[in-house]
Amino acid sequence: MNIAVQEILPISKRRRLRDLGLKIGRFLPGKYNAITDVKGVKVGHSTIISGPDQSEPAIRTGVTIILPNEDNVFMDRVFGGSYVLNGAGELSGLIQVQEWGLIETPIILTNSLSVGTCSEAVVEYMIQKYPQIGNKLDVILPLVGECDDAWLNDIAGQHVQSQHVFEAYENARSGPVPEGSVGGGTGMITCDFKAGIGTSSRKLHQRYGGYTIGVLVMTNFGEMNSLRFDGIPIGRLLAPYYSHIPKRTQNYGSIIAVIATDAPLLPHQLNRIAKRVSLGIGRVGSYAAHGSGEIILAFSTANKVPRESAKMVYRVKSLLEHRMNPIYEASIETTEEAILNALCVAEDMAGVQGHFSPAIPLDKLQDVISQYNKLFSQNEKR
Amino acid sequence: MNIAVQEILPISKRRRLRDLGLKIGRFLPGKYNAITDVKGVKVGHSTIISGPDQSEPAIRTGVTIILPNEDNVFMDRVFGGSYVLNGAGELSGLIQVQEWGLIETPIILTNSLSVGTCSEAVVEYMIQKYPQIGNKLDVILPLVGECDDAWLNDIAGQHVQSQHVFEAYENARSGPVPEGSVGGGTGMITCDFKAGIGTSSRKLHQRYGGYTIGVLVMTNFGEMNSLRFDGIPIGRLLAPYYSHIPKRTQNYGSIIAVIATDAPLLPHQLNRIAKRVSLGIGRVGSYAAHGSGEIILAFSTANKVPRESAKMVYRVKSLLEHRMNPIYEASIETTEEAILNALCVAEDMAGVQGHFSPAIPLDKLQDVISQYNKLFSQNEKR
Amino acid sequence: MNIAVQEILPISKRRRLRDLGLKIGRFLPGKYNAITDVKGVKVGHSTIISGPDQSEPAIRTGVTIILPNEDNVFMDRVFGGSYVLNGAGELSGLIQVQEWGLIETPIILTNSLSVGTCSEAVVEYMIQKYPQIGNKLDVILPLVGECDDAWLNDIAGQHVQSQHVFEAYENARSGPVPEGSVGGGTGMITCDFKAGIGTSSRKLHQRYGGYTIGVLVMTNFGEMNSLRFDGIPIGRLLAPYYSHIPKRTQNYGSIIAVIATDAPLLPHQLNRIAKRVSLGIGRVGSYAAHGSGEIILAFSTANKVPRESAKMVYRVKSLLEHRMNPIYEASIETTEEAILNALCVAEDMAGVQGHFSPAIPLDKLQDVISQYNKLFSQNEKR
Amino acid sequence: MNIAVQEILPISKRRRLRDLGLKIGRFLPGKYNAITDVKGVKVGHSTIISGPDQSEPAIRTGVTIILPNEDNVFMDRVFGGSYVLNGAGELSGLIQVQEWGLIETPIILTNSLSVGTCSEAVVEYMIQKYPQIGNKLDVILPLVGECDDAWLNDIAGQHVQSQHVFEAYENARSGPVPEGSVGGGTGMITCDFKAGIGTSSRKLHQRYGGYTIGVLVMTNFGEMNSLRFDGIPIGRLLAPYYSHIPKRTQNYGSIIAVIATDAPLLPHQLNRIAKRVSLGIGRVGSYAAHGSGEIILAFSTANKVPRESAKMVYRVKSLLEHRMNPIYEASIETTEEAILNALCVAEDMAGVQGHFSPAIPLDKLQDVISQYNKLFSQNEKR
Repeated sequence: MNIAVQEILPISKRRRLRDLGLKIGRFLPGKYNAITDVKGVKVGHSTIISGPDQSEPAIRTGVTIILPNEDNVFMDRVFGGSYVLNGAGELSGLIQVQEWGLIETPIILTNSLSVGTCSEAVVEYMIQKYPQIGNKLDVILPLVGECDDAWLNDIAGQHVQSQHVFEAYENARSGPVPEGSVGGGTGMITCDFKAGIGTSSRKLHQRYGGYTIGVLVMTNFGEMNSLRFDGIPIGRLLAPYYSHIPKRTQNYGSIIAVIATDAPLLPHQLNRIAKRVSLGIGRVGSYAAHGSGEIILAFSTANKVPRESAKMVYRVKSLLEHRMNPIYEASIETTEEAILNALCVAEDMAGVQGHFSPAIPLDKLQDVISQYNKLFSQNEKR
Repeated sequence: MNIAVQEILPISKRRRLRDLGLKIGRFLPGKYNAITDVKGVKVGHSTIISGPDQSEPAIRTGVTIILPNEDNVFMDRVFGGSYVLNGAGELSGLIQVQEWGLIETPIILTNSLSVGTCSEAVVEYMIQKYPQIGNKLDVILPLVGECDDAWLNDIAGQHVQSQHVFEAYENARSGPVPEGSVGGGTGMITCDFKAGIGTSSRKLHQRYGGYTIGVLVMTNFGEMNSLRFDGIPIGRLLAPYYSHIPKRTQNYGSIIAVIATDAPLLPHQLNRIAKRVSLGIGRVGSYAAHGSGEIILAFSTANKVPRESAKMVYRVKSLLEHRMNPIYEASIETTEEAILNALCVAEDMAGVQGHFSPAIPLDKLQDVISQYNKLFSQNEKR
Repeated sequence: MNIAVQEILPISKRRRLRDLGLKIGRFLPGKYNAITDVKGVKVGHSTIISGPDQSEPAIRTGVTIILPNEDNVFMDRVFGGSYVLNGAGELSGLIQVQEWGLIETPIILTNSLSVGTCSEAVVEYMIQKYPQIGNKLDVILPLVGECDDAWLNDIAGQHVQSQHVFEAYENARSGPVPEGSVGGGTGMITCDFKAGIGTSSRKLHQRYGGYTIGVLVMTNFGEMNSLRFDGIPIGRLLAPYYSHIPKRTQNYGSIIAVIATDAPLLPHQLNRIAKRVSLGIGRVGSYAAHGSGEIILAFSTANKVPRESAKMVYRVKSLLEHRMNPIYEASIETTEEAILNALCVAEDMAGVQGHFSPAIPLDKLQDVISQYNKLFSQNEKR
Repeated sequence: MNIAVQEILPISKRRRLRDLGLKIGRFLPGKYNAITDVKGVKVGHSTIISGPDQSEPAIRTGVTIILPNEDNVFMDRVFGGSYVLNGAGELSGLIQVQEWGLIETPIILTNSLSVGTCSEAVVEYMIQKYPQIGNKLDVILPLVGECDDAWLNDIAGQHVQSQHVFEAYENARSGPVPEGSVGGGTGMITCDFKAGIGTSSRKLHQRYGGYTIGVLVMTNFGEMNSLRFDGIPIGRLLAPYYSHIPKRTQNYGSIIAVIATDAPLLPHQLNRIAKRVSLGIGRVGSYAAHGSGEIILAFSTANKVPRESAKMVYRVKSLLEHRMNPIYEASIETTEEAILNALCVAEDMAGVQGHFSPAIPLDKLQDVISQYNKLFSQNEKR
């Protein structure tokens, strides 16, 4: 079946969205067009792909880690916020972020049935790093988000181990971020095409503060008919070619999005930013299905909140509220692009039970984009 | 200036979106493509347009009323829910809806500085109708939502009077709903074009329960560059023609959306529906600006909750959760269409301080839609 | 009936709680033991008492105003937060506080059916003061909270007029705050005794930052059997004496509490403080009845957020999170004392339909307190 | 040190609160005065106590499981709700409860650093029971709540293993519930006295529907000075005797409360019930410290929501809103009693680093209660 599709729609070397000639929104991306463009943010993956063979089923899963403040966020916390568009999912540790407005652990992304394992592994890692946790220092409640990769991955086999979390830690770095079928996104699917991890960023003009906004998604939602690229109904256009391929049933899905910025936002402002991410998800075609978990975490690196301090009062920088609009716009467009990057980069994947997830066909996509650009040329980027 | 624009883009007789050949989404509209397609829902307007002349400034405002259960919602309440995408606005009475999951008053839409007046008038109306309010019957807390029409209307003049609320009551009826510059939407603007009241509905197939979902918006948000029609970047395409027209500054705006259905949804399910409306708003181009109030109210007419009952327990119908997806999709697409209807129907308007709000040019719009339809023909409506 | 009760329980000159020998909690009150101990906060009342006579029924209502930052909060906003323990009530304008974390209007307290009138009057006042509202300056959404005084007041008569709001403005001042049956609290009842407005404050030790926390309540909730003074089941002890007096039915009630502090709290921290106020309400005996509106508003005067600024980023002071506990404790105990002050100060009142609300009998109360103090002497104030 | 305290305050055989002669509130308890009085609810513990010796530090921890619907809640879900009084804690899986209003997994209580382990173990258990999870059936997101037992337990040693979760499952039964230092509560402390697991219930009169309300807490919050028994300031009275015992520092603490009922409450009503539990916690003396996690989960067994159904609409029973007050009252008083039961039943415990947690002295407590009852005889239980 895999082959048949390739015959119709040969899949060339994968590229990111911008390399196909489509720019989302009016702002320019940062250097790597990635969440790591926000200074201090690091990302690492551990990808687990094996089988199927006689001894084991197909394993297509992994772990992605985001370090909000190098590997130091436990001692020098950052302000955090969140929004749950649809809560048929889990981001353990979220309750504390909602209460304190602080993020003090790394953020882990993995499959739905490995949340516990990853949480335990982060605890183990943190205790090794800070042996005073649980006595002189407070306990930690790790942030672990999940999507369901059961369509391709033997999820019930619980193949993620603590070593994979440690490996993701080791791989964490600044600069370009591997996308597509990597890390927590290894077995993920979006709008019936193979997806996974995607990222994007925006660098605002100096007159808007010169801030960077970066998003990383583990994207796993939706149906083909809903898929849009910058408004173009790509899913509807491609659907006829894929009618013969079995698709996931409706209750699968989810997306976890993490948005980072160096703009000096307070916790309640970060909650607001997180809401805008949901609009970006909606523009790609999500209707936030009943069984989907659309959960968004936001943080700002501009203020560090010390764990231990002899002081009572500290000074924080805060963006004046009426200056937030460019950040809102940037949040939406970079979210949209992060999701589309995951789609454009991910390659075909076969998984458990003979399930197959096709990559979105870039040649066909590029054709449509060219026609679209001709019709609606983007001539007025501010 | 008005004339100049008309020369470039002659404004023909106004039509609703579907009459221009563009269909949003995959479901069919109800009979009137209006919120009144949900049985028992009535809508009425009181439109206030006068001046400017020597004695007074331009008055461009009014009152819209939605009766969720004929004129009987105080005694036979309906389940309600809500969502606030951005809370720079007011819908007085919302706290009680969020607590009780019940709607027991009509819903009023007006300008920002007339919320108090309308609230007072509803109280007066209700006391006349139910003289036992405040003694044998509980007090009421009217639902009054607002947007800011100050760009065209002498809002500080507080020109809405209780008589206008009574007039809207009298005008309330089923069937077709006047749209555009009427009622509370009289002075409203969306993405720099004249807008106001818009409505739309969807009737689901019988296999999805045969439910009707209807939305009415008072729409007043956004910037021209962001405006999209079913993904088409209409705003960007039209913007060059309107660069010379002064536009509202950024903090203006807002949208109040009311979504009604006869699907048997419980209060927590109505909250979920209300969130989907926000995705529809996002698709038209809203980034939910800092100073904008995007507030959504949802209700279901399927269960009536009696105010007075000797019983302790009653039986309610409830849709099984995994059946909600078609309602989600319908909520998004009918919201999008309701906003676009407001834009397509509203005509040019001049207001205070020489401000002018152009109608969106339907001819030009139709041209673009035709090209778009040719390129991406919608051939797979399910 | 009034007389009979007085014979049993002669009502002496009313006093505040501390004058009866009972101290709530471990912290000391501020100078006036009032919300006005927080610098910059002013309170004013307009009390409406007339009838009953041949021409009109009993009117027992009014308006209370709290100015969070002298009369300047529109231009120099303060951070705000809130919590709704039970939302069967209204505090119009709350949506914007929840979104922006800012308070920019005075806070009005009145009866349930006068919210609209008061909102309209505040708009009128503000437009006179700032004629640019609605053109160069944004519109405002006034904060108006309510309780239902229908047991004593002809609430359906809507006797509050804009002039009463203006009068409350004029009466607003620092220093001692009139309590009991004054302003918005004129016709209010708590646990079947006459109550209304109460206030209290705490001044923290310098080692806790030296901050002041002040609360003002319009209190109108509960049943006699639940009433507690510092844990003492006063209501149960007094109930036998009042069994013959008709009492309000269950759906009446509510309390609006406003908590102010000069501690430098961010919006999300103010939400947390507001939650603690609910615990203080609970300790007095509230179970937050279904038909009761327990709504809490919090603000901090420590940071001012300018409405207009050429700057993009400003610096705010922020209390380190782990320093908040004393403020939490103080919030609870000062709330409890504010409610009890309302009860201790309010005098007997007769109202509509022959309804009578007795004052809590101070002599009897003092007897119980004395025995209680003897038994559980408070010997360890820190 | 242990011995010295016992000399002053000899600790007799432990008893539950009612056996000491103190009744909280006005309603009667159910048969076992336990959450298991709600039909279908089962509770099981796995208690881990060992050391300290040469090979290992003191281990004082464990796992408690609550089965909301026998062992069948995955297929026949129950309506659920929640409330977070202070979110410095974790109840993984809560996001989905908040979204769907459904509980579909057992509820696990354990220590803060074992949330991941327990989550993983529940997944393992459920996959064994339902092998179709992750393919034909949806994945699950287990509900695991935590408190920090680091004062007595070697929490960093992560001593909870999956076998302990399985053991708790096996031990789950109806009828009397072991309290005090058992299960997840093994190492927990409340107001500086040994506590842990406590439970209580109320059976409403038939005129209130005859419903049962049961609460189980894992209680671990507070300071001695704040502790109250039915309003009696027991903590202040006992504190002088314990001044020489080292106490936990302020950031420790938390309480997880689970409230169950057979009253037919909808999800939004269960959220309301959960809020009332917070008032009960407050009455015992909690101010919901900054570092404390007060998290409340509520469920109703009256309606079962099938996982799989060919139907679209089902019928649910729903209590009319104005009938909820007795349930509110019962929720508060049974919460208070559940916490106090944990205190009265738990015995002295020594733990890591020489830390010691004294049991509350029942003889002294009984003395105070006797005097209190004499002074304020409870003569009017309705």
